[in-house]
Amino acid sequence: MPSDCLFCRIIAGELPSTQVYSDDSVVAIRDIAPAAPSHLLLLARKHIASIGEIQATDKDLISKMGLVATELAAREGIAEDGYRLVLNVGRNGGQSVDHLHLHMLGGRPMAWPPG
Amino acid sequence: MPSDCLFCRIIAGELPSTQVYSDDSVVAIRDIAPAAPSHLLLLARKHIASIGEIQATDKDLISKMGLVATELAAREGIAEDGYRLVLNVGRNGGQSVDHLHLHMLGGRPMAWPPG
Repeated sequence: MPSDCLFCRIIAGELPSTQVYSDDSVVAIRDIAPAAPSHLLLLARKHIASIGEIQATDKDLISKMGLVATELAAREGIAEDGYRLVLNVGRNGGQSVDHLHLHMLGGRPMAWPPG
Repeated sequence: MPSDCLFCRIIAGELPSTQVYSDDSVVAIRDIAPAAPSHLLLLARKHIASIGEIQATDKDLISKMGLVATELAAREGIAEDGYRLVLNVGRNGGQSVDHLHLHMLGGRPMAWPPG
């Protein structure tokens, strides 16, 4: 775990967050700058820089994050009306923290294009 | 396969598309209304309405689509600069076709919020 990784420090409890879910591979927190009424970040517990850096041994993590998102959408009460899942990769993608994380945004109609 | 599903008909070759990738579970085409210089749609070959409808037996498909996206990002020449992956779920998510598909957008900086 890189000691300067914001999300590793949040997962370790060294920095505060509003945690809404945790299991052995995924931790979900509320985004501190929400872009929608419901805006969660699903963090990989393991430090992986991005989906582009994922190794074959960790590939199931992508499915896991997607399925946790559907579960959290139900808990947040946004499953029926719908939501958007966003994975930013690198500079053009707008990835602000180099630690694999999936955005889930709902509670309002999401516009197009997606940024 | 529902005969009125746009993406099922594209996959079956009944409707035209610019296909850039195909394997036993995923087909990728260019979006006909691109929102970025590189804008691909990764379609599940199997008709599944959305990630919220995915069954346990198909869960590996999410990882598969994510990994195909990283491969196609490299082919499109956007892997280094970065890109955004977007999964729209339901009405608020902006899902326009009820057939599981992942958007990959790159070739320009993607803005925030993501729609």
